[in-house]
Amino acid sequence: MSIRIYGRHPVLEALKAHRKMFKVYATDAVTPSLLAPFEAQGIPIQTVSKNTLDQWVGTQHQGLAADVEDYVCVPLNVFLQQHQPKHLILLDGIHDPHNFGAIIRTAEAMGMGGLVIGKHRRAPITATVVKVSTGAIETLPLIEAGNLANALEQLKQAGYWIYGLDLNTDRTLDDIPKDVNVCLVLGNEGSGLSSLIKKRCDVLVTIPMYGQTNSLNVSVAAGMAMHHLSKAR
Amino acid sequence: MSIRIYGRHPVLEALKAHRKMFKVYATDAVTPSLLAPFEAQGIPIQTVSKNTLDQWVGTQHQGLAADVEDYVCVPLNVFLQQHQPKHLILLDGIHDPHNFGAIIRTAEAMGMGGLVIGKHRRAPITATVVKVSTGAIETLPLIEAGNLANALEQLKQAGYWIYGLDLNTDRTLDDIPKDVNVCLVLGNEGSGLSSLIKKRCDVLVTIPMYGQTNSLNVSVAAGMAMHHLSKAR
Repeated sequence: MSIRIYGRHPVLEALKAHRKMFKVYATDAVTPSLLAPFEAQGIPIQTVSKNTLDQWVGTQHQGLAADVEDYVCVPLNVFLQQHQPKHLILLDGIHDPHNFGAIIRTAEAMGMGGLVIGKHRRAPITATVVKVSTGAIETLPLIEAGNLANALEQLKQAGYWIYGLDLNTDRTLDDIPKDVNVCLVLGNEGSGLSSLIKKRCDVLVTIPMYGQTNSLNVSVAAGMAMHHLSKAR
Repeated sequence: MSIRIYGRHPVLEALKAHRKMFKVYATDAVTPSLLAPFEAQGIPIQTVSKNTLDQWVGTQHQGLAADVEDYVCVPLNVFLQQHQPKHLILLDGIHDPHNFGAIIRTAEAMGMGGLVIGKHRRAPITATVVKVSTGAIETLPLIEAGNLANALEQLKQAGYWIYGLDLNTDRTLDDIPKDVNVCLVLGNEGSGLSSLIKKRCDVLVTIPMYGQTNSLNVSVAAGMAMHHLSKAR
């Protein structure tokens, strides 16, 4: 299965990450030097009009798109057999591709060890997610679990403390100890953590707010939390 | 001058903030109870079709729009005569309305005292900015300066320490002392702080990154920085 990704950064990062690339599409605004590394790898390059690319992938392509192999997730049990990074992030349903991509970008930059996502009820990994992640999706392990509540039990058994980000609790990010393995759980854009997932968390923590605004954008809140965790690497 | 804003949260928050409201537009999906507070204030309500609203303001309106008085900024010198909040944010050119709105939302939630913006070379305050701010724009003071470099000098004279968020420095957010008034300067999406603004900062600080990704989305980075500052309120 293949996916048509777009944007200079995502397409170049996919090449750098040795992702299988079936075909590159470029407008004549793209310089030969930018295309040289693709040619060097023997990847077919097709010149297309800006209009064609606009129709295929929207207007954010910067003249470049590519058909690449699908982004696949590692099953959680397979991942845990090989890796036990200090920090993992688990997304309890995320529906906006921009938030999904932004969280991937931040998680990779903040040195998180991977992003655990459900198989169902979440944004699919589309070209928009890839674009917004600015290539971070090539590096950050994406870990998939059929059932997130069970996944949390597996993570506990593997030694992780499960911290859920929630609005209704007195504890804050500062209450997360620095010397333990942590899986931080983030809820979805509208309703936050589902009650089933909330029950499986060891501790709920919040980000104190001081204004009239009673919620944060999920990718901003995720950024604050991951920045906090990154200091305990 | 008026602006047509949309979305339930922004329109309700504008009413709550006593913003002058000239007319409300609602589809028949909006319940009478939701419209009652507008009627109580004697604001004319026009029923419109979903298609009409889609054409006017895009598809994110949730059945509600309103013509309200323009969002105006306070001049910096006027603001400083009356307020000297502990933390201010200054945006050195921000071009994406989503990032602009998201930063307003986060700044209000994190208890920042205001957002200083330039008169020129920045995203205008559009309905999208209002929508993404989820009403925070009604509460957070927006402060305008004709020349941002001069604004930084004014802020220094008013006792603020100017910290610029930059990629190339060894200092981090943790190096910002907790007991001083701080104006944090954020650069634009693509090129960061302009060299003129950088020179006017007292100290440049960075957010350490640990992956392949070498930059953060500006509204995510802003969130991390404001969350850090909020702990010293």
